[in-house]
Amino acid sequence: MTRITAIEAIDVRYPTSRMLDGSDAMNPDPDYSAAVAVLHTNDDGLRGHGLTFTIGRGNELCVAAINALAPLVIGTTLEELTSDMAGLSRRLLGDSQIRWVGPEKGVVHLAAAAVINAVWDLWGKHAGKPVWQLVADLEPEALLATLDLRHITDAITPGEALDLLKDRARGKAQRRARLEREGYPAYTTSAGWLGYPDDKILRLTGEARSAGWNAIKIKVGRSLDDDLRRCALIRDALGADGRLMVDANQVWEVDQAIEWIRALSQFDLWWVEEPVHPDDILGHRRIIEAVDSVRIATGEHCANRVMFKQFLMADAIDVVQADGCRLAGLSEAMAVLLLAAKYNRPVCPHAGGVGLCEIAQHISMIDYLCFSATWEERMAEHAAHLHEHFVDPIRIEKGRYLAPHVPGISLEMKPASIAAHRYPNGAVWAQ
Amino acid sequence: MTRITAIEAIDVRYPTSRMLDGSDAMNPDPDYSAAVAVLHTNDDGLRGHGLTFTIGRGNELCVAAINALAPLVIGTTLEELTSDMAGLSRRLLGDSQIRWVGPEKGVVHLAAAAVINAVWDLWGKHAGKPVWQLVADLEPEALLATLDLRHITDAITPGEALDLLKDRARGKAQRRARLEREGYPAYTTSAGWLGYPDDKILRLTGEARSAGWNAIKIKVGRSLDDDLRRCALIRDALGADGRLMVDANQVWEVDQAIEWIRALSQFDLWWVEEPVHPDDILGHRRIIEAVDSVRIATGEHCANRVMFKQFLMADAIDVVQADGCRLAGLSEAMAVLLLAAKYNRPVCPHAGGVGLCEIAQHISMIDYLCFSATWEERMAEHAAHLHEHFVDPIRIEKGRYLAPHVPGISLEMKPASIAAHRYPNGAVWAQ
Repeated sequence: MTRITAIEAIDVRYPTSRMLDGSDAMNPDPDYSAAVAVLHTNDDGLRGHGLTFTIGRGNELCVAAINALAPLVIGTTLEELTSDMAGLSRRLLGDSQIRWVGPEKGVVHLAAAAVINAVWDLWGKHAGKPVWQLVADLEPEALLATLDLRHITDAITPGEALDLLKDRARGKAQRRARLEREGYPAYTTSAGWLGYPDDKILRLTGEARSAGWNAIKIKVGRSLDDDLRRCALIRDALGADGRLMVDANQVWEVDQAIEWIRALSQFDLWWVEEPVHPDDILGHRRIIEAVDSVRIATGEHCANRVMFKQFLMADAIDVVQADGCRLAGLSEAMAVLLLAAKYNRPVCPHAGGVGLCEIAQHISMIDYLCFSATWEERMAEHAAHLHEHFVDPIRIEKGRYLAPHVPGISLEMKPASIAAHRYPNGAVWAQ
Repeated sequence: MTRITAIEAIDVRYPTSRMLDGSDAMNPDPDYSAAVAVLHTNDDGLRGHGLTFTIGRGNELCVAAINALAPLVIGTTLEELTSDMAGLSRRLLGDSQIRWVGPEKGVVHLAAAAVINAVWDLWGKHAGKPVWQLVADLEPEALLATLDLRHITDAITPGEALDLLKDRARGKAQRRARLEREGYPAYTTSAGWLGYPDDKILRLTGEARSAGWNAIKIKVGRSLDDDLRRCALIRDALGADGRLMVDANQVWEVDQAIEWIRALSQFDLWWVEEPVHPDDILGHRRIIEAVDSVRIATGEHCANRVMFKQFLMADAIDVVQADGCRLAGLSEAMAVLLLAAKYNRPVCPHAGGVGLCEIAQHISMIDYLCFSATWEERMAEHAAHLHEHFVDPIRIEKGRYLAPHVPGISLEMKPASIAAHRYPNGAVWAQ
């Protein structure tokens, strides 16, 4: 019997701010970081690796929160965990004291993501399957049993959910074959960080086109003049058939967002992302009503399924950017896939950072196989950096994610990378 | 010039779970705790004391988060801080890296509350005034300058806010005289914790009536039969003129809440509190529409001004239970007072716990003097425990809060109490 014997929590940080990689209007100088959770078991050869993503300071809080949650998992068997994944979510999100400092949001929720992702990884490794395949192989009843529907049953009852999953299971084998053949559609954010000068953006856009990308996202929101100039440059380089998305990273007030988006809409934007505060469901709704020719995307800071439920029920979101490390891991991300499928909105998972592409590919593939059953209007986000630190890094071909074949959830980092980037004593930081 | 030289962060916990004080349907065994922030200055006789409240495990995360925020304040002068309190909020909530692990919610927001409350305390002590009076003595322009309106200007513009504050400044001297004479209206939660047996509840209700309380709140939500029996008992003991409130602490689904509230409405409830998940603005809206004879209260877990803005704009809240330690301190709590005044909803601040009554009295008195300019339909919450640990504890007379006269925000704890209850090494925990 496989039993969890310990959880190791590790603070890993990359000094990305030195190059302005990842810079945007709200986050000018991120150091991409991970709070890593490693589940140790009584089998020395079997460990589960999960993480949550942060951008530097504050990562130590997520590490401490993983340690706070650890007693809720240590001592349980893998069989107990995997036979009741919904129960695991309830236990980690519902601890009667820790819940107070969320609830279901912020530091403790990010930490729960790391732990829950590590359990999925352990399950995948134990089963010898990449997690997208592990999930796709579950019968609808078993898949439903992994989801905690608490506080969202007014949007979808368990009965409706089961009917939906059964309906979407049809054609799964054909979709899987196509997925393995073609890879999952993606777009890239690597060209247009706010800190990059125009010539660098143009060069990167050209390189992306040559590599097969025809969907590109850039950062906006610091200066309208800059944004108009950069959008014109990239739209020109992309051609009329390329997809251009822009991301404001929450910097606008609601009325300001409406004006700014109207000014940028001339560039035929595929979506505008995070126009205002991520908690502002009704603000997003007002923007969508005011600029109805432009689609509004949000989700990378959307704390939990209850927030996504409201975005969907209020018609306040056009593109659902669920994040498997901001939400309480793959489990809650799948609850959001379920809601999005019911309300017929595309999920384009948030990625980039460190590790987010690795988990986003699983989320998108699971969406395609089990929930939405389509990839029309859907793309997983991609950013080019930091993949070399992973044991099973993403593989991109012609702007698409190739399905991973290594067992697990793809979040295991190389021991040497962890050693060098441990904060504050790894070689990269100690120097 | 007074300069912040250090911030001391302290983990203080009280073993309240041993007596089931504070038990409710979501939180069966709280150990009331405080993450304390003490601002040290270059003047040995002048320190600012703030705190945030938690219920045990997870308190260490708030302490760590206070330490993470400390560099943003250390080295600044009191004059720099008090001349731009809105800027202090922006700096603490907007740190370009720490913000990611909120944003503006959970552990980092609770920690910001402790620091911001400590700055208000320092300002009050430096000025020789209790903070309610310090704020009431500010001119409308100066008061407005303490509020960060970011992401709520679609609800109220700075111009509207100033007009409102000027309007409400009329009659302030008369209200202040009345406040000092009569005290601020309150209700008590000390009688009806979910873990208490019926006879204890009845005895406590009788004692409360004798002490002058005619407004009592009890916990519900674990069993409808129990709730019906307990409500009948207390309504009988209170008499028809007493106010009875019930608190479900988030345990219901939306449809379940509607049924349960309809069943309890026979007891003429003054309000029903936290029926569903605290993030579920639109769920609260649906409940209000379905049970329109019963008022719905929420707010103790409402993370920030953006959430309260939506509750108010969507008519999804009847009673605003702002919490000066869940929100980013008194500053953001006052932004919520402003929103509530504009949307004409009563604020009845959340209290209880440890320290929450001490700050809630300031919030209610400031609301009365500067924002709503009335105490009709308004009561501050009161719970009887743990006040003995404070240097300037609340003073209750005939069910009303007497205005504090000691300079500061009333959150300073006695050194001996801190020493005994420090976690994990204080005498109470080490034994």
